[in-house]
Amino acid sequence: MKLLIVGGVAGGASAAARARRLSEEAEIIMFERGPDVSFANCGLPYFIGGEIADRDKLLVTTPERLQSRFRLDVRTRSNVEAIDRVARTIRVKNLVTGREYEESFDKLILATGAAPFRPPLPGMDLPGVYTLRTLQDTDHIKQRVDQGVKQAVLLGGGFISLELAENLHRRGIATTIVEKNQQILTPFDPEMTTPIVAELAKKGISLLLGESAEAIEQSAAGLVVCLSSGQRLTAQLVIFGVGVRPENALAVGAGLAVGARGGIQVNEYLQTSDPDIFAVGDAIAVQDVISGESTQVPLAGPANRQGRIAADNALGRMVKYRGTQGTAILGFFDRTAAITGAAEKTLRRAQRPFRKVYIHPAHHAGYYPGAEAMTLKILFDPTTGQLLGAQGVGGAGVDKRIDVLAVAIQAGMTVFDLEEMELAYAPQYGSAKDPINMAGFVAGGLIRGDHPQIDLDEVLTALASSTAEPPFLLDVRLPTEFSAGHIPGAVNIPVDDLRSRLSEIPSGRKIVTYCQVGQRGYLATRILVQAGFPAVNIGGGFKTFQLFQATR
Amino acid sequence: MKLLIVGGVAGGASAAARARRLSEEAEIIMFERGPDVSFANCGLPYFIGGEIADRDKLLVTTPERLQSRFRLDVRTRSNVEAIDRVARTIRVKNLVTGREYEESFDKLILATGAAPFRPPLPGMDLPGVYTLRTLQDTDHIKQRVDQGVKQAVLLGGGFISLELAENLHRRGIATTIVEKNQQILTPFDPEMTTPIVAELAKKGISLLLGESAEAIEQSAAGLVVCLSSGQRLTAQLVIFGVGVRPENALAVGAGLAVGARGGIQVNEYLQTSDPDIFAVGDAIAVQDVISGESTQVPLAGPANRQGRIAADNALGRMVKYRGTQGTAILGFFDRTAAITGAAEKTLRRAQRPFRKVYIHPAHHAGYYPGAEAMTLKILFDPTTGQLLGAQGVGGAGVDKRIDVLAVAIQAGMTVFDLEEMELAYAPQYGSAKDPINMAGFVAGGLIRGDHPQIDLDEVLTALASSTAEPPFLLDVRLPTEFSAGHIPGAVNIPVDDLRSRLSEIPSGRKIVTYCQVGQRGYLATRILVQAGFPAVNIGGGFKTFQLFQATR
Repeated sequence: MKLLIVGGVAGGASAAARARRLSEEAEIIMFERGPDVSFANCGLPYFIGGEIADRDKLLVTTPERLQSRFRLDVRTRSNVEAIDRVARTIRVKNLVTGREYEESFDKLILATGAAPFRPPLPGMDLPGVYTLRTLQDTDHIKQRVDQGVKQAVLLGGGFISLELAENLHRRGIATTIVEKNQQILTPFDPEMTTPIVAELAKKGISLLLGESAEAIEQSAAGLVVCLSSGQRLTAQLVIFGVGVRPENALAVGAGLAVGARGGIQVNEYLQTSDPDIFAVGDAIAVQDVISGESTQVPLAGPANRQGRIAADNALGRMVKYRGTQGTAILGFFDRTAAITGAAEKTLRRAQRPFRKVYIHPAHHAGYYPGAEAMTLKILFDPTTGQLLGAQGVGGAGVDKRIDVLAVAIQAGMTVFDLEEMELAYAPQYGSAKDPINMAGFVAGGLIRGDHPQIDLDEVLTALASSTAEPPFLLDVRLPTEFSAGHIPGAVNIPVDDLRSRLSEIPSGRKIVTYCQVGQRGYLATRILVQAGFPAVNIGGGFKTFQLFQATR
Repeated sequence: MKLLIVGGVAGGASAAARARRLSEEAEIIMFERGPDVSFANCGLPYFIGGEIADRDKLLVTTPERLQSRFRLDVRTRSNVEAIDRVARTIRVKNLVTGREYEESFDKLILATGAAPFRPPLPGMDLPGVYTLRTLQDTDHIKQRVDQGVKQAVLLGGGFISLELAENLHRRGIATTIVEKNQQILTPFDPEMTTPIVAELAKKGISLLLGESAEAIEQSAAGLVVCLSSGQRLTAQLVIFGVGVRPENALAVGAGLAVGARGGIQVNEYLQTSDPDIFAVGDAIAVQDVISGESTQVPLAGPANRQGRIAADNALGRMVKYRGTQGTAILGFFDRTAAITGAAEKTLRRAQRPFRKVYIHPAHHAGYYPGAEAMTLKILFDPTTGQLLGAQGVGGAGVDKRIDVLAVAIQAGMTVFDLEEMELAYAPQYGSAKDPINMAGFVAGGLIRGDHPQIDLDEVLTALASSTAEPPFLLDVRLPTEFSAGHIPGAVNIPVDDLRSRLSEIPSGRKIVTYCQVGQRGYLATRILVQAGFPAVNIGGGFKTFQLFQATR
């Protein structure tokens, strides 16, 4: 049994180690184009910023260690040029010596990864223009930063750009992020990015939305990034983080099927259209577990697990990969944004009916010092309550709640299950009614009809409408809260006075209540509905309004 | 509809608020013996220690607020003396005026809680001897501490005693914990408490195991606690935290069924043996979701959720309580210990077959600064892999993993599901292979037979046996690690040399491998098994040995 693995980072190295554990007999050769295997991709920005001081820390393992521990034949600086599927061989080029040779295989695993997209712009090849993928990219960028950079421009407002922005800020570099969409972090729904946008502003990092680069020019002060609006940004460092493309050339050359977006197509056993050839990681198209769509999710966690499964199957097991749910997280200074499952945009595209709720809890008991605020949004089936997606943004404790919700999605649980979750409570860690329980209560109340809710988007549309009669908008907070800011057009009756002031509520009109985070508004709808008024509450209240307001 | 609620803290206050939300018409009266409602029970030790500076923070809500917001008739300092089930009335005593009166009910919810057990020892009533349950207890203890206490003795080594120990230490008080069992934190398996015991020692807090108080005497220096061993401990403050007993007198007086350990018996709708009378919280016996046993779990989370469900059902819904899985957490200085589901002792008592694995991962990627160590132990069905329980101890990130595992238990998931979990990974939060995935891999490998493991307890027993031939104990770490400490009797062959030194392995004997945390030992068993040796690995390796060693 001779197993060849193309690519030696997350998926490839996982596959190789797993294969050796399963078989001491197999001949296992791993080819890697670069000089390093299994490096800590997700740590690269933090080495540039200096948070990770020791470059060796980025090397999860070395070819030598893989060789001695796993008896792997690791060949770095070796590019696999072609696959001959009939002869069952690959052609390899040693990038150091230039020598080309063939290697036969019984099974082949492709873990070729994805490459940062480099748009074909004038000036892309100027010194000082980079993408960030490898340790070598990192070394080049860090060297430049170490030599002194005053201004940087990051193209793209995704995870890596934001991580880079934090680290360049740490190095004292005036940084601008340019994003062609109207929001950063496009896997998230736009309103959930508001706290991260606010943090950018707080740190003095510029953000230009709806803008893209058209050319890069050399100037006396370094580089000039020419934007679609005509604006020109001077910088000594320009990094493109506008997405990645699956490295599919080898697969395409061998006639293996690839998807519309270029990902190598695999079945549930991670077999390509040639059953002896497997593919894993950023190079493949995976099935989204919620929408069922074929999609690309270039993340380290799935790549590692896929590597393991491909090795199992290459060695004759039949293990299924269950698909990917897109769990991802961003740390940005002391802010966290995390997502799992589907976002609204995904569900709309898949024409999947859903409802949503927002809550704004503290990450642990409010009576214990240090409670940090967060916003949680969950998306669920309007009938069954099945959880479809979740997003969280805030400080401490966001990662925990998204992980809990990721498991709930994996298990096919409903919002009613969230109500019953028995999570660990002591005042340093959570609340007797954890944010997860609260999200369940709010969503469960919506489905059961106890807590009729209206989406803020719908309210804003109705208020802006010139044809239909707008709803009666009732702010049930205290007068001090109301005067500090409210949704335009709202009338203020504090919830504690509502029972005695029901005569002020107009009949024959839809009543929309809200408070600060949703709880008093909920009680208000209970009072109003039981008094015969058609009342609905704005889930998440004024805080949700503030998230949306910033995106308009 | 007239609903009476006895008890106004977690379960009672939750039930009252929920009932009002469901019905504006219902007449709702809540009786509370003490002066406060809904106070933050779990915060009391931190107010004594000064971490929570403002006493008002402990008042989650006030009778006045419940009255104005929820139109509840809240009667504090009102003791419910008896229930007349035939007349459907209760007798109430106003503890301020002494007046007694009757109140009729349609439905009644008992949320009487549990009282700290006060053993009938000589000297229990001396000034300076306390239990901690109410705000008044807290005030008394804090006053004493503020006046100056040099030494304190805490009887019982449970959650509250440890939280108190931390807070008394913060106040500069020399503190001794006395626990009659051979371990602290009895819901945990003993070896999992080792890191907390080490932290006690590090902070200079004395711990006496296997000891109990027999009497308390007055002395010139304050009090003397006389222990079973004859030892005498001088202290100016003595606090008993030796468990709680359900406050069942009212229920018993009314002829309602109570369990063997005193908890009021309820069905899945939280109805007592009288279907119009519900009971919730620390006062009731609940069903353990793993063992099916009737048990008592005095925790705030379940009490809150039960209050909500009892209100639903009192108002005519039919909502089931699913049972309790005993998720609990302790913060002790910067250490965390958490548990969910069954411990080994529970499974043994229930004669439920199980296997276990230990892992010792870092809480986030090791290459990012600040990774903290933890130990995770999971218990699972040896055939199906269904998760039965989990315990974690360490620093940051323990709470997250136990919450994830709590959800997995709730969902009936298996260790194979843990392998596939897609949790949020960035280097500040986790690893590409999260500790949860790792636990799944180790347990899955055990069940599949890929990774044969032996429990350390069994190894230690076999090594101590004078009759049977001991196993060949193979330490596959580096010589430097071996010489820094190893399991007595072990032979050292580093895993990287093992393939070339197989001739040194005896045939015809059971081979037990181990390394530092289990991973190299796992590879060693793979090599040995494939070479024909009957090898098994010690799960969790030398670190697990160290946890056990301290308990022996």
